[in-house]
Amino acid sequence: MPRYQPTDAMMLPRFSGIRTFARLPHVTDLTDVDVAVIGSPFDTGGTYRVGCRFGPAHIREASALLRPYNPSLDVNVYDYISAIDYGDLPVVPGFIEAAYDQMVEGLMPVLNAGVIPILLGGDHSISLAHLRAMALRHGPVALIHFDSHNDLWDQYWGQKYTHGTPFRRALEEGLIDVKRSSEVGLRGSVYGPEDIQMGRDFGFQVFTMDEVRELGFAHVLKMVREQAGTGPCFLTFDIDFIDPAYAPGTGTPEVGGPTTWEALQCVRALKGLNFVGFDVVEVLPSYDSPGQVTALAAANVAFEMLSLVAWSRKHR
Amino acid sequence: MPRYQPTDAMMLPRFSGIRTFARLPHVTDLTDVDVAVIGSPFDTGGTYRVGCRFGPAHIREASALLRPYNPSLDVNVYDYISAIDYGDLPVVPGFIEAAYDQMVEGLMPVLNAGVIPILLGGDHSISLAHLRAMALRHGPVALIHFDSHNDLWDQYWGQKYTHGTPFRRALEEGLIDVKRSSEVGLRGSVYGPEDIQMGRDFGFQVFTMDEVRELGFAHVLKMVREQAGTGPCFLTFDIDFIDPAYAPGTGTPEVGGPTTWEALQCVRALKGLNFVGFDVVEVLPSYDSPGQVTALAAANVAFEMLSLVAWSRKHR
Amino acid sequence: MPRYQPTDAMMLPRFSGIRTFARLPHVTDLTDVDVAVIGSPFDTGGTYRVGCRFGPAHIREASALLRPYNPSLDVNVYDYISAIDYGDLPVVPGFIEAAYDQMVEGLMPVLNAGVIPILLGGDHSISLAHLRAMALRHGPVALIHFDSHNDLWDQYWGQKYTHGTPFRRALEEGLIDVKRSSEVGLRGSVYGPEDIQMGRDFGFQVFTMDEVRELGFAHVLKMVREQAGTGPCFLTFDIDFIDPAYAPGTGTPEVGGPTTWEALQCVRALKGLNFVGFDVVEVLPSYDSPGQVTALAAANVAFEMLSLVAWSRKHR
Amino acid sequence: MPRYQPTDAMMLPRFSGIRTFARLPHVTDLTDVDVAVIGSPFDTGGTYRVGCRFGPAHIREASALLRPYNPSLDVNVYDYISAIDYGDLPVVPGFIEAAYDQMVEGLMPVLNAGVIPILLGGDHSISLAHLRAMALRHGPVALIHFDSHNDLWDQYWGQKYTHGTPFRRALEEGLIDVKRSSEVGLRGSVYGPEDIQMGRDFGFQVFTMDEVRELGFAHVLKMVREQAGTGPCFLTFDIDFIDPAYAPGTGTPEVGGPTTWEALQCVRALKGLNFVGFDVVEVLPSYDSPGQVTALAAANVAFEMLSLVAWSRKHR
Amino acid sequence: MPRYQPTDAMMLPRFSGIRTFARLPHVTDLTDVDVAVIGSPFDTGGTYRVGCRFGPAHIREASALLRPYNPSLDVNVYDYISAIDYGDLPVVPGFIEAAYDQMVEGLMPVLNAGVIPILLGGDHSISLAHLRAMALRHGPVALIHFDSHNDLWDQYWGQKYTHGTPFRRALEEGLIDVKRSSEVGLRGSVYGPEDIQMGRDFGFQVFTMDEVRELGFAHVLKMVREQAGTGPCFLTFDIDFIDPAYAPGTGTPEVGGPTTWEALQCVRALKGLNFVGFDVVEVLPSYDSPGQVTALAAANVAFEMLSLVAWSRKHR
Amino acid sequence: MPRYQPTDAMMLPRFSGIRTFARLPHVTDLTDVDVAVIGSPFDTGGTYRVGCRFGPAHIREASALLRPYNPSLDVNVYDYISAIDYGDLPVVPGFIEAAYDQMVEGLMPVLNAGVIPILLGGDHSISLAHLRAMALRHGPVALIHFDSHNDLWDQYWGQKYTHGTPFRRALEEGLIDVKRSSEVGLRGSVYGPEDIQMGRDFGFQVFTMDEVRELGFAHVLKMVREQAGTGPCFLTFDIDFIDPAYAPGTGTPEVGGPTTWEALQCVRALKGLNFVGFDVVEVLPSYDSPGQVTALAAANVAFEMLSLVAWSRKHR
Repeated sequence: MPRYQPTDAMMLPRFSGIRTFARLPHVTDLTDVDVAVIGSPFDTGGTYRVGCRFGPAHIREASALLRPYNPSLDVNVYDYISAIDYGDLPVVPGFIEAAYDQMVEGLMPVLNAGVIPILLGGDHSISLAHLRAMALRHGPVALIHFDSHNDLWDQYWGQKYTHGTPFRRALEEGLIDVKRSSEVGLRGSVYGPEDIQMGRDFGFQVFTMDEVRELGFAHVLKMVREQAGTGPCFLTFDIDFIDPAYAPGTGTPEVGGPTTWEALQCVRALKGLNFVGFDVVEVLPSYDSPGQVTALAAANVAFEMLSLVAWSRKHR
Repeated sequence: MPRYQPTDAMMLPRFSGIRTFARLPHVTDLTDVDVAVIGSPFDTGGTYRVGCRFGPAHIREASALLRPYNPSLDVNVYDYISAIDYGDLPVVPGFIEAAYDQMVEGLMPVLNAGVIPILLGGDHSISLAHLRAMALRHGPVALIHFDSHNDLWDQYWGQKYTHGTPFRRALEEGLIDVKRSSEVGLRGSVYGPEDIQMGRDFGFQVFTMDEVRELGFAHVLKMVREQAGTGPCFLTFDIDFIDPAYAPGTGTPEVGGPTTWEALQCVRALKGLNFVGFDVVEVLPSYDSPGQVTALAAANVAFEMLSLVAWSRKHR
Repeated sequence: MPRYQPTDAMMLPRFSGIRTFARLPHVTDLTDVDVAVIGSPFDTGGTYRVGCRFGPAHIREASALLRPYNPSLDVNVYDYISAIDYGDLPVVPGFIEAAYDQMVEGLMPVLNAGVIPILLGGDHSISLAHLRAMALRHGPVALIHFDSHNDLWDQYWGQKYTHGTPFRRALEEGLIDVKRSSEVGLRGSVYGPEDIQMGRDFGFQVFTMDEVRELGFAHVLKMVREQAGTGPCFLTFDIDFIDPAYAPGTGTPEVGGPTTWEALQCVRALKGLNFVGFDVVEVLPSYDSPGQVTALAAANVAFEMLSLVAWSRKHR
Repeated sequence: MPRYQPTDAMMLPRFSGIRTFARLPHVTDLTDVDVAVIGSPFDTGGTYRVGCRFGPAHIREASALLRPYNPSLDVNVYDYISAIDYGDLPVVPGFIEAAYDQMVEGLMPVLNAGVIPILLGGDHSISLAHLRAMALRHGPVALIHFDSHNDLWDQYWGQKYTHGTPFRRALEEGLIDVKRSSEVGLRGSVYGPEDIQMGRDFGFQVFTMDEVRELGFAHVLKMVREQAGTGPCFLTFDIDFIDPAYAPGTGTPEVGGPTTWEALQCVRALKGLNFVGFDVVEVLPSYDSPGQVTALAAANVAFEMLSLVAWSRKHR
Repeated sequence: MPRYQPTDAMMLPRFSGIRTFARLPHVTDLTDVDVAVIGSPFDTGGTYRVGCRFGPAHIREASALLRPYNPSLDVNVYDYISAIDYGDLPVVPGFIEAAYDQMVEGLMPVLNAGVIPILLGGDHSISLAHLRAMALRHGPVALIHFDSHNDLWDQYWGQKYTHGTPFRRALEEGLIDVKRSSEVGLRGSVYGPEDIQMGRDFGFQVFTMDEVRELGFAHVLKMVREQAGTGPCFLTFDIDFIDPAYAPGTGTPEVGGPTTWEALQCVRALKGLNFVGFDVVEVLPSYDSPGQVTALAAANVAFEMLSLVAWSRKHR
Repeated sequence: MPRYQPTDAMMLPRFSGIRTFARLPHVTDLTDVDVAVIGSPFDTGGTYRVGCRFGPAHIREASALLRPYNPSLDVNVYDYISAIDYGDLPVVPGFIEAAYDQMVEGLMPVLNAGVIPILLGGDHSISLAHLRAMALRHGPVALIHFDSHNDLWDQYWGQKYTHGTPFRRALEEGLIDVKRSSEVGLRGSVYGPEDIQMGRDFGFQVFTMDEVRELGFAHVLKMVREQAGTGPCFLTFDIDFIDPAYAPGTGTPEVGGPTTWEALQCVRALKGLNFVGFDVVEVLPSYDSPGQVTALAAANVAFEMLSLVAWSRKHR
C-alpha cells in the first residue's frame, strides 16, 4: 500500500482534525510521494471580485467529504498513489512578478522529486507560474484548459500580468505546446469576435459552450484527447467553467455553463493522458453559497485529478 | 368535499398566519383524516453537518407557496383527500435509541387510524423508526429510496445507529420487503466498490446516477414501479438525491445529482403504487441559500407525495 | 459609431465608477438615443416576498460584468445602437394606481422620442403601466411572456391591481394583441386547471414547462415567433421563469424551470421580431445568493434584449 | 394556574412543534385569556426596505428560546396571566386604507373581550390601526414610543399613510392623549431641526438619543413614567430604536442607538403603568443576521411586555 | 526561546498555510510543550441549535489574525511558553457517554505530560469530560465559569448528559472545588428563580449580568479572583456569555450580555491564578455572521488564556 | 442656496435612482463645488481579506438613507456647502505604484479647484496617495488617524507599499506634520510593544483603546484637537476603528473597539479644525452583514465629515 493515506473517516469523523486536502497528511518531505496537493493562494491578478487567496483553505474544508473510491473511473485512489497535502506555496500578495518567482521556486523541488502537483488557486494568474515550473522540468506542455474565458488577452490597463493574460504570456515564453492544446467552455459577452478567434489563431483547438452544446461533450472530449497525444499535459480548470448556479463563488462568473456532473465528466474523459500537473483556480469563498457548493465542486474536480493519476497507475 | 382544507390564499395572504404545512389546519384528532404531514425533528444521527432538527419548520415556511392543483398529475389534491398538519413527533435529541422508541410510539396512533403519514425530517436515521412503525402496521414494506448514498453501512465508529445505517438495521429487523425495493441516485466518491454492490447483494434493485444518466429517468422509474408491485410501499426521499445547486441545505451533499424537475418527475412516475407512508429527510436550514431553495424543493417533494395519494383516490 | 457607448473596461476597471447599466452613460436627454435602460422600482404589487424596488440597483451592479459583443447572435451591440441608462421612473411606493400614472407619464417621453425602453423591475405589476404606455404609442402589442405564472388572475383579496393580475387588466384595457401573443413557462402547483386554460381562453398561445420539455425549446420558440408576426411586440421576462437554482432572488419562486442557458436561448430565438419594448421583472435582491447569480442572470437577459435590437439594426 | 400555558421545554424540546409565540397555544377563542400575542403582517407603509410582513413569523421562530420566569422583574409570567398566540390579523397587502379597516375589525373582538394585545409587526404604519382600535375601546391613550424616528411626518410624496406618518394621523384623529405621551430615541440625520421640534410642538415629551446619553436612561424613564400617569397607555416599540449592531434586520436603520440590554431596561422601567396594548414593529427578516439577533431582540421585547402585564397582576 | 513558535506573519502571509490555531505548529509529540490548543468537536449535547462540531475549525480559521504580543497584559506570549496545536480529541458524534470516555482518554496524555490544555468546543457538554480529566490529574479544581446560563440543571427530558447539565454532574462526581468557584453572566428568561439560586445553593459565588452591571466588572472580577485562591483552577468560557451582537454564532443566545471588550477584560483580570486548563465552548459557525465575528471573539478569548499562562511564567 | 443639492427624498423615494453618495448629483465639473465625495476603489495593499475595491459602491448604496440635517452638530449641511459625487479615481488594480500615480493625478484637479475631497476606500494603502496629493497642494498636513492599527510598519515580506505601511512612507516623504498629528484606537494583539511605541517615537500623539477607555473619549478628543492646532488637517478613518459588532465588513477586524455612537462622537468632536481632506477606508462589502451595517456606519462617518465642513462654513 502506498505510504501516505488519508485519515480513515470510519475511524475519526470527517468533521474533526486539522484541515488538509481530503484528510491527507500534511507532509513537506517528498520521499515516497506520488501526488502533492498544494495551495497557491495568490489573487493579485484579479480584475473584478478578489479574495481567491482564501480558495485553498475553502477547498480543503469541503474536501473532508471526499472518500477514496471513484466509481465513475473504477479506481480506489490511494491503492495506487501516495498523496499528501504539501501546504501552500509562498506568495507575497500585491506584487505579481515577485510572487511568480516565489511560486516557481516553491514548486521546483516538488517537480524535481518527480511528484505530480495538483495546485489549488488562487486566481488564474497563478497558472503562468505553474507553467513556467512545468516547462523548466518537462519542456513545453499541452494545455487543456476548461474555462468560460480564454485568458489570452495581451494586457489590461497596460499591465501584462493579470488573471486575464496568463496563457498569452505562456505562449510568448514558449511554455505551451499549442498544437496539442485545447480550450473548452468560452461563453458570455466578450469584447469582440476576436476573443474567440484569438485562441484559434494561436493554434489552440477551441470549443465555445455553444459549440459544446451542439457537438456534445463526448465528441468534444474525444477531440481534446486526440489533440493532446502522448506528450506531457497540464490541466488547468477554472471553476467559472461551471455554471454559477453550481459554482457561484468565483470572481468573474458567466451564466450558461455546464453542470457539475458535466464538468466532472469532462475531467474523467481525459483518463490515460500523460498529466504532469494540474490546477483548479478562481474559487472565491466570500461569494460562495452558505452550503459552500463551489468549494465542494472544486474539491471534486481535484479528486478527479487525483483519480486520473491513480487510473493511469492502475492501468499501466 | 374532504373535511380538512388549507387556508385559501385568495382569502388570506400566504405570508400570514401560523406556519403549518401547506397552510393545512394543525389538528391532532385523527377523525376524518386521510393524510397527516408530521415533523420528525431528530438529527443526532448526522455524521457531518447537523441541524436537521429545524428541517420541519423550514419546510413548513416554504410550503406556504404551495397551491392545491397539481397540473403534472392533473389532480386537485384536496378534492380527494382530507389532509392535516399533525405537528411534530416527540423526540429527545442526543439519544437515538430512546428517540426511536418515542417516534414509533408517536406514529402508531396515526397508522392505527388508517392515516397515511408524510414525515418531514430530520436526518435519515429517522427512517428506521418510520419503518419500524410501518412494519408493525403493515408488515414488511417495499422501500423506494431516492438518495445519493445507500445508507446501508453496518456501523460508524462502532455505532449501529446513525444516518448512514438505517436501512441495514431495517433489513436486519425484517422491516423491508427487499425484493420489491429499489435504490436510485447513488453517486460521488465512496469507500469502495462494495458501497454500490452492497445494496444489490441485499436484494435491492440499485441504479447509480451514472446508470440513470445512461438509461434515462423514464426507463429507470418504470423498473422501480414494476419491482414494487402491488404491495405496501414506503417512499423515502433524501433531499441530497437532488444536486446541491438545487438543494444546498443538507448535511452531506454530493455534486452531480438530478435537477429539481427531474426529481419531481421521479416521484410523479410512481403514481398508482400502494403507498402507506413517505418521508423527506436531510433538509438542513442553516446551510440553505437565502432564497431557501432547498426548503422549496422539499415542500414540492412532499406536495407530490400528497398528490400521489390524491391521484390514487381519484383513479380508484 | 453611435453616440453613447459604455465605459471601456480595458481603460477603467469594471468595479469602478457610478453604477449604471452595463456602464452606459446616465443620460436623460433622449437625442441620439436608440435604447434606454430604465429602472421601474415599484413592488407594492407583490403578494408574497417583497423588495423588488431594489431590483434595478441590483441588476445595475451585476451588469458591470457585461461586455459589448454577443457571440451567440454575432453582434457587437454598440456598433449598431446608441444606448443609455435613463435612471429610474418616478414611483410612489404603496399606492399602485398613483404609481401607474407616474410610470406611464415617465415613460411617454421616451417612447415619443422613438426610443426603445428596456425596463428593469420591480414586481410584475409594473408591466401594466409599461403596456399602457406602449399602447398609447403603438396601439395593442403582441405580448411575449416568459414566466412560471400566468399573471392573468382577476383579483387577489378583492383587489384588481397586484403582480398576479397585470395581463388580465391589460387584456381588458385592450393593450394586448392577444392573437399574436404567447406565454411560456407556466409550472408548479396552481389553483386549478383553469389557471392553465385561462390564457388559452383569452387567446394566448400557452406552453407550460411540461410541454416545453416535451416539445423542445426550439420548436416552442419557433411557434412563438410565428405567432408574433411582424407587428409591434413587447417582451416581458419574469425572472422566476428561470429555475430557482439559477435565479433564487425572486418573490414567488417555482422549482422545475429552465437553466439560464436555456432561458437566454429563448430570448435569442426571438431575433428579427419587431420589438418596441422590454421588461425584466421580479428580481428581489435580499433573497439572492451571496454570488448574486439572479442579478447576473437578469443583467444577461437585458443584454440579450439590447442585442435583439442591435441584431435588427445590423440585419435591416 | 391560568388556563393557557406554553409547552414545557423540559417535556418537549424547544426546536419542535408548530411555531407559535413563546410556544403558547394557538387559540382563537378568547375565553379565559388575559393577553393575546397577535401578528400584524402588513408592510405596504414602508418607504425604504420592505418585507416586514414576514416579521411575525420570524419573531415567533426566535421566541422558542423564551422561558417563563423574568428575573429582572422577578415574575413567573404564566403564574399570573393566561396568554395565547391568536394568529395574525387579516391584512390585504398593497392597500393600506383597506388593510387599516381589516386590522381594526380584527382587533376589536380581542379588545372587547378585555384581552390585552401584544402586536407583532409589520411596519410602523400598522400602529395607526392599533391606536384606532385602542381609542374605540379606551378613548385616547398615552403613547410611549421608542424609536429612532418620530414618525410624525405629515406625508410622503403626497401620501398620508406610510410608516413615517402614523402618529401624525393618530393625533389628528384624537387617538392619543399627547400630554401623557413620550418619544424616546430620535437620532441620526433628519430633514431639519423641525423633525425634533415637531413632537414637542404637538405636546409630546421628547428625548433624543443624545439627550438620553446625557441624562441617563434611569432619569429619562422616570420622566416617561411620571408623564404617563395612571390612565391607559399604549407602548409602541420600533425595533430600530435599538442599534443596528443589535437589531440589523429592519427597514430604515439608524446607527448610534442603545444596546439590547439598555432597550430591555427601558421596557422594564415602565412596570406599574396601566397598559392596554403593545406593539413591536419593523422587524425585517431578510436583512437579519444569520444568527437572527433581531428576531431574538424583538421576542425579548415582547416577553418584557408580557412580563409588565404579569407584574401588574402580581402586584395589584 | 521556547521550542514551538507560530509561523511569522511577516515572513508568510497569514492567509496562507494549513489552518492551525494562531498558526502554531501542529504537533502531537508533547516534549517541550507548555500549552496545547486542542479541538473538542462534540455537539450531541446541544438542546437547541447544533453544529458546534465545526467550532474548532472555525476558531482556527479566525485565529490566523492573532499576533504574539498582548498589550493589555504586557506579555509577548511565545517568549514565555512553547505552544502547539495538538489537533482534535477523538469523539464519536451521537453517543455522549462513549464520547466522554474518548475525550478523557485523549486528554490524559496531555495532562500527564504537564501540558496545560486550551480546549476549543464543541457544545458545553464537553466540559464534563474536561473536568473529569482535570480531576484525575489535579483533584477537584476551582471552576471559573463565564456563561449566560448556569448549566446546572439536573436533566432534560429525563437525560442526564446534555449541554445544560455538565456542572451538576461535575459536582456530583466531586470534580469541582465549589467553595473556590464562581459563575458570572447569568441572564435572560429562565425557568424560575431557582435557576439563579441553584448555583448559590451548591456553593458557587454567582453574579447575574444585572448584578455585574450594578457592581461593575472590576469589583466582580476581584471577588472571583479572591474566591479562587491559589489552588488549581479551570476556566470555562461559554461564548454566549458575550452579547449576541458580538457573538451571534452560538446555539442558545441570550440578549443583554457584555461586549467583547468587557469579556476580554474579564479573562485578563484573572491573571496570576493557578490555571491548569481552559475551554472556550458553544461556537456554532453556521449561525455566525459573514464577517465571522464570533470566531474572532473566541480566538481572542483563547489568546487571552494563552496570555494568562505566559503572564504567570513571566512573573513567577 | 449652494448650487448642488441631493435629490429630495420627499419627492423621489430614496430607493430609486442611480446610486451616488447621499443622492448628490454625479458631476465632474468642479465649478461651484465645495466638497466632492470621491471613490478610491483600490485594494491591492490588503494583507489579509481583500475586496475593498467594492467599498465605494457599497457605501454609496447605504448612503441613500442619509438626510440633510445633522442634529448633533446643529447644521443643515447643504445650506452651507455645495457637494457632489465626483465618481471614482482611476486605479489599476494589482500595481500599487502605478495606481498611486493615477490617484494623485486624479485628485490634483479637485484640490487645485479648492474643493475638499471626502475619499471612500479602498484599503488603507490609498491614504499614501491621498496624502501625497494633499502635500502637493497644502504642504505637510496634520494627520488625525482613527484606526485599530498604526499602519506604520516599515514593510511586509520585503515590500514597502501595503495597507500596513502608508503612514511610514508618508513620514519618510515629509507629507505629515507629525507634531500636530494623533493616532487613536490601537488595540488587539500586535507584534510587540514597539507597535505602540513606534507612533510615539515618530512624534504622534497616540492613544490606545485601553487608554481611551481609561481617559474617556471627551478628554482624548480634546487633546487631539489641541494637538492639531489651526493648520491644515487630514482625517483618515479606518472603519476597523469601530468594533466588529458594528462594522464587521472589513479586512483585518480587531475586537474590543468603540460603538458607532462613540465613533461618530469622535468625528463630531473635531469641529472647527481646518480640514483640507478626509478619507474613510477598509470597508469590505463581501464580509458585511446582510443588513449592511458596516456600509451604514461608513456612510454616517462620511456624513459627519461633510457636516464638519458645513459647520465651519456656518460658524466662520
